[in-house]
Amino acid sequence: MVTRLSSFFFRSLREDPADAEVNSHRLLVRASYIRRQAPGIFAWLPLGLRVKAKVEQIVREEMAAAGAQEVHFPALMPREPYEATGRWTEYGDGIFRLQDRHGADYLLAPTHEEAFTLLVKDLYSSYKDLPLTIFQIQDKYRDEARPRAGLLRGREFTMKDAYSFDYTDEGLDASYQAQRDAYERIFQRLGMDYVIVKADAGAMGGSKSEEFLHPTPIGEDTFVRSAGGYTANVEAFETTAPEALPIPDGAPVVFDSPQTPTIQTLVDHLNAHIEAPAGGEWAAEHTLKNVVLALVHPDKTRELVIIALPGDRDVDGKRAEAAFAPAEVEPATEADFARNPALVKGYIGPWSAQGAVLGEESVSGIRYLVDPRVVEGSSWVTGANEHEKHLHSLVYGRDFTADGVVDVATVREGDIAPDGTPITLERGMEIGHVFQLGRKYAEALGLKVLDQNGKLVTVTMGSYGIGVTRILAAIAELNNDDKGLIWPASVSPFDVHVVATGKGDDALNLGEQVVAQLEAAGLDVLFDDRPKVSPGVKFGDAELIGVPQLLVVGRGAADGEVELWDRRTGEREVVPAPDAVARLTAR
Amino acid sequence: MVTRLSSFFFRSLREDPADAEVNSHRLLVRASYIRRQAPGIFAWLPLGLRVKAKVEQIVREEMAAAGAQEVHFPALMPREPYEATGRWTEYGDGIFRLQDRHGADYLLAPTHEEAFTLLVKDLYSSYKDLPLTIFQIQDKYRDEARPRAGLLRGREFTMKDAYSFDYTDEGLDASYQAQRDAYERIFQRLGMDYVIVKADAGAMGGSKSEEFLHPTPIGEDTFVRSAGGYTANVEAFETTAPEALPIPDGAPVVFDSPQTPTIQTLVDHLNAHIEAPAGGEWAAEHTLKNVVLALVHPDKTRELVIIALPGDRDVDGKRAEAAFAPAEVEPATEADFARNPALVKGYIGPWSAQGAVLGEESVSGIRYLVDPRVVEGSSWVTGANEHEKHLHSLVYGRDFTADGVVDVATVREGDIAPDGTPITLERGMEIGHVFQLGRKYAEALGLKVLDQNGKLVTVTMGSYGIGVTRILAAIAELNNDDKGLIWPASVSPFDVHVVATGKGDDALNLGEQVVAQLEAAGLDVLFDDRPKVSPGVKFGDAELIGVPQLLVVGRGAADGEVELWDRRTGEREVVPAPDAVARLTAR
Repeated sequence: MVTRLSSFFFRSLREDPADAEVNSHRLLVRASYIRRQAPGIFAWLPLGLRVKAKVEQIVREEMAAAGAQEVHFPALMPREPYEATGRWTEYGDGIFRLQDRHGADYLLAPTHEEAFTLLVKDLYSSYKDLPLTIFQIQDKYRDEARPRAGLLRGREFTMKDAYSFDYTDEGLDASYQAQRDAYERIFQRLGMDYVIVKADAGAMGGSKSEEFLHPTPIGEDTFVRSAGGYTANVEAFETTAPEALPIPDGAPVVFDSPQTPTIQTLVDHLNAHIEAPAGGEWAAEHTLKNVVLALVHPDKTRELVIIALPGDRDVDGKRAEAAFAPAEVEPATEADFARNPALVKGYIGPWSAQGAVLGEESVSGIRYLVDPRVVEGSSWVTGANEHEKHLHSLVYGRDFTADGVVDVATVREGDIAPDGTPITLERGMEIGHVFQLGRKYAEALGLKVLDQNGKLVTVTMGSYGIGVTRILAAIAELNNDDKGLIWPASVSPFDVHVVATGKGDDALNLGEQVVAQLEAAGLDVLFDDRPKVSPGVKFGDAELIGVPQLLVVGRGAADGEVELWDRRTGEREVVPAPDAVARLTAR
Repeated sequence: MVTRLSSFFFRSLREDPADAEVNSHRLLVRASYIRRQAPGIFAWLPLGLRVKAKVEQIVREEMAAAGAQEVHFPALMPREPYEATGRWTEYGDGIFRLQDRHGADYLLAPTHEEAFTLLVKDLYSSYKDLPLTIFQIQDKYRDEARPRAGLLRGREFTMKDAYSFDYTDEGLDASYQAQRDAYERIFQRLGMDYVIVKADAGAMGGSKSEEFLHPTPIGEDTFVRSAGGYTANVEAFETTAPEALPIPDGAPVVFDSPQTPTIQTLVDHLNAHIEAPAGGEWAAEHTLKNVVLALVHPDKTRELVIIALPGDRDVDGKRAEAAFAPAEVEPATEADFARNPALVKGYIGPWSAQGAVLGEESVSGIRYLVDPRVVEGSSWVTGANEHEKHLHSLVYGRDFTADGVVDVATVREGDIAPDGTPITLERGMEIGHVFQLGRKYAEALGLKVLDQNGKLVTVTMGSYGIGVTRILAAIAELNNDDKGLIWPASVSPFDVHVVATGKGDDALNLGEQVVAQLEAAGLDVLFDDRPKVSPGVKFGDAELIGVPQLLVVGRGAADGEVELWDRRTGEREVVPAPDAVARLTAR
């Protein structure tokens, strides 16, 4: 096919869009690939649609190779199935909800676990029907609070989501592995770096979860990589707890600590007034910081919790969100403190569900959770739940206990991974997610099959997502320079971009010949045949559009010569036209 | 490609879905093509998705051949552009509206005229950029009051909508014709009968409009076909007005007409008491029926109008809706009459915007509109706006006038078309619509380009829609028998359905060979390799699925023989396997 730029729906824009924060957004808009319709919502122009179709085709081929079958669900879904699994409420403000003219509730689906589960329940009833993996490539919706970075975090986006159905755990492992392998092939074909990291599975009720992250400084996710090869996203990183210590004799000591509401002021006070621990000075890590957080549950109830963690760490927001999902996590407000006068700001100490363990005991019902580093026998300096009073030599397991352990402290370079080696932190963008859902959805929605013995067994499921539009943006983000985009050949909107320049008819005539030959060889050609457009503008547009292989028909046309131009390396080579055609069609 | 039924996501259902009113719905559900998710909202299973992709591909190819370029707009669109053209309000209850978390208004787009207009405005500014036709194949939404007939009238449906942009009327005519020609090719390739009928253009503010109707008794639309070849949908049918008559001398005569609130009682009274018109009896057509309707405007204001039409006709609801769009039309209620005591039910006569022309004059502001048959000089019997009083010899143009003419009376077989020949009425299903929008949208949204003289001119547009999912259902509706579907080859989910039957391995082995050969020749094969499924079940499923070409490997397998089975004619022929393969791959 030949597409002529003279009639192609394309217009390069000189100005960056005002709201563009990243290169992919900037260039995809400037080069007429996409156009904003509303925050996080884009229209696709012919160039963009071509690249999107190529990404989708690669995904489709690898899904077929993995034995997955394509289906398609509506975006507009009724409330009932989401109600049955609790997600109608759990999604909070994160989804678009609406009513039809009869007042029935609907949502614009962010994912389709429930619908897939019900469809299989509708059609299948025997272990003989399994395993089954079905997928769709479909437009999804999330009502992001702050959609940004163009296609990287939109409110309408295209995803491939697949779901596997098995009746044994081994079957689920195999289905999971098949999708995981398919994802590796997809990213390899797309020329994208990726790291597979352990992800947090708890919030979705599943058992095993891994994310495919594309390492990039603009990624929204932080992930951990250990010297020994352990990888995890920061939410899923498991802190290695030190070994428990023998519980010493003795008792905690209360001391006056005027004007020490922060860890630093406390450490200074300790070093000035209290005998230091063996062999050194007091440091933040000797103190126990008690952070009050508010959990906003999906039903909008507000629960306060206290997180106790070493004073040299903070609560990591994302880790806390993951640990407490589906609740949202907020810092406690002044109003929260005002309602709970027993929480003495700056001097909070151990606590229990019955109220403050020390100090005033008038408040109860606040869970007290400790960091994994707070092991039995460990000794801490912490607040005494009284204004300007602290304790030292407070020993966990002797002087206080907790309602639970929660691993939400900040992760730092050099922390020790579960494999015993130190970690580094990197930024990444989530481009895929494979997930063993287990039996959560099948149980909630009653998906059972008869097994070999005629017994009803609950089906076990996996969920596998790839963000098509996000991947496209990530490829654009990874492949550009100051002049424009540079597509990998596998997803380029055209195979070759032929530019005819110069006055007179020589170049245009030779261009027509070359283009006809390339087309006859089955190549998809973009032909810049625009009359009265300067070579400079044509070259600029070609560089902006980013087809990796350019062919210029210009000055040498009268001699039958053309120029092959590699957009990525910038190399340009003058060759006879037939040689150029032969080289391009030999690939 | 070979798809094996043993692992294909398919399950034939014996029971018709409870809500299925038409064959296409019944069979597409029973054969696992689609599955209901909510009223008028369906999921697509692998079989359905294959057929849908084939219909889309035919549409796409013909759009490309017509020079149209593909783009893709989001389903979720902001309110603003629809507000600018008034359609946000005009749509009434017919669309899905929603708000995002920040309270901004959105809709699920039923069509995208505004968005296409704004996109072209964004990118183009010169006559040199035109003509341009761009299209999308996209899922659309309408909040139908009563979604029904499966895919034929859904709330989520796939459409191809194209929009053309020109700067001259001649250009628009050419763009319109190119789309119209493409539609003819599409329906020919799909093997669908169609009639192109004149459609009502007024409501959309455009100038020329034609619908492609598929003639079928289950069609929702009625269309008119004249002996001379004129076609129109019933909304667009233009009544041929008789010629005006000379105005006679004289005056209308009021007469007592006790208990004559209906046309029939009035005619009986006339024949009993009043001298008949020359050469016959009084008949309903001599009377003038005055019907009070309520127009509910998009802003919810309620306006009463009186429609005067010959007593042998009624107001046709669809024609009235078309004539008064975007207002909705309702019969006047008892409350409407109670609020307007001058409207004497059963005895209403001519009226004017200033109030009743005859009788009590206390009510005003009600428009009085007449049928085209009420021409100057025509004489009528009608109500006198007083209880049990009528008038005869009331002459239009002498004794009364109207605020306008409105052509909303029922159309009947034998009525005369504009070409002077009598009409018949047929039922049809709308499958395509081509429409000259003209400058309405470009004016509302400010889409202008510079012409050859450097002058800004407003662009003129066309809008062209084809219902992809509706066409698919129409094809299914047209191609089935009591055993199941029978697809035309152009959209069949597979090229060949190979059924292996019988015990022992002969059939399965020969089946594998045949299937491999068909695949090697590039055919898309569905292979029923299910073990332990009876031939009867396999044949039943094959007939239900409806691939038009079947190949059975069974009893003759040991002798290398197979059976070619034409699903449409039912013909079955035993031939050597290599001959069967040769015949299927020769096509």
